[in-house]
Amino acid sequence: MACEFCGLSEEEKKWLLTETKHWVIYLADVQDYLGRSIIVSKRHCESLSELTTDEWQDLQVVIKSFEKMLKNEMSATMFNWSCLMNDAYKQKEPCPHVHFHVRPRYEAPISVGEMTYVDEDFAHHYNNQAKSKVMSEVVGQVFARLKGNISNYFEVI
Amino acid sequence: MACEFCGLSEEEKKWLLTETKHWVIYLADVQDYLGRSIIVSKRHCESLSELTTDEWQDLQVVIKSFEKMLKNEMSATMFNWSCLMNDAYKQKEPCPHVHFHVRPRYEAPISVGEMTYVDEDFAHHYNNQAKSKVMSEVVGQVFARLKGNISNYFEVI
Repeated sequence: MACEFCGLSEEEKKWLLTETKHWVIYLADVQDYLGRSIIVSKRHCESLSELTTDEWQDLQVVIKSFEKMLKNEMSATMFNWSCLMNDAYKQKEPCPHVHFHVRPRYEAPISVGEMTYVDEDFAHHYNNQAKSKVMSEVVGQVFARLKGNISNYFEVI
Repeated sequence: MACEFCGLSEEEKKWLLTETKHWVIYLADVQDYLGRSIIVSKRHCESLSELTTDEWQDLQVVIKSFEKMLKNEMSATMFNWSCLMNDAYKQKEPCPHVHFHVRPRYEAPISVGEMTYVDEDFAHHYNNQAKSKVMSEVVGQVFARLKGNISNYFEVI
């Protein structure tokens, strides 16, 4: 059994934004939704039901801090949160590891560097199909903006 | 502003499975995923960030109880949880109300009454497109099975 999150390479940790006592926040490498991130449990835990009370309480702080940061720094309007873990079940011996996807959503166009981002599906279910790779080019810019202000939202541990 | 959850009609509450101190659980009327349910905050709360600590702690109990019930009573394999709230932003003056969608997912075929249900997308992202209405016909049977055993999983309040 191979857990996709317990053995992340240094390259895969490239966009690590911050960590709390129980969670690590990575900016997703495909920025189809600006600020799209993945919140991963530090402990190998296979379902939401198995999270401890302490992990669950810490998650609430992470959600509040993340939403506040993305509203302030990126002008996000609202957020789509999901905990799916389907990919793990593609393996013969599934080894799921609790993680959340968060997609900030934007009512108005947003400027990032020289480009303007428009959330074309706003107010509709996120588009789960891979889009143009254009947005991957801005991941460094989004990362720098969030990482540079991270201490205003998350305690340094 | 009209909140779609604060003013539910008696007809819309038809498939109410149970309630806890802070949450109400409804079986979804379209059973495209067997046991698909909606968990709604009792208080009008507009984002995850605004949930109180008490509401968040109660939600953890709801998740554990729901997953246990669906594993025991329906043989669910795992679960897709999401908190999206996109529909509220289709209105000119959005009035979001925190709720979660939960779609139980099934590795093996499941018998419900005289039909056999197969989760054709298992291990893949749930299909957000409306499917055949066939599954709506079993909502009464699924509701009866869960409601009949609800006190084994949720405290009566």
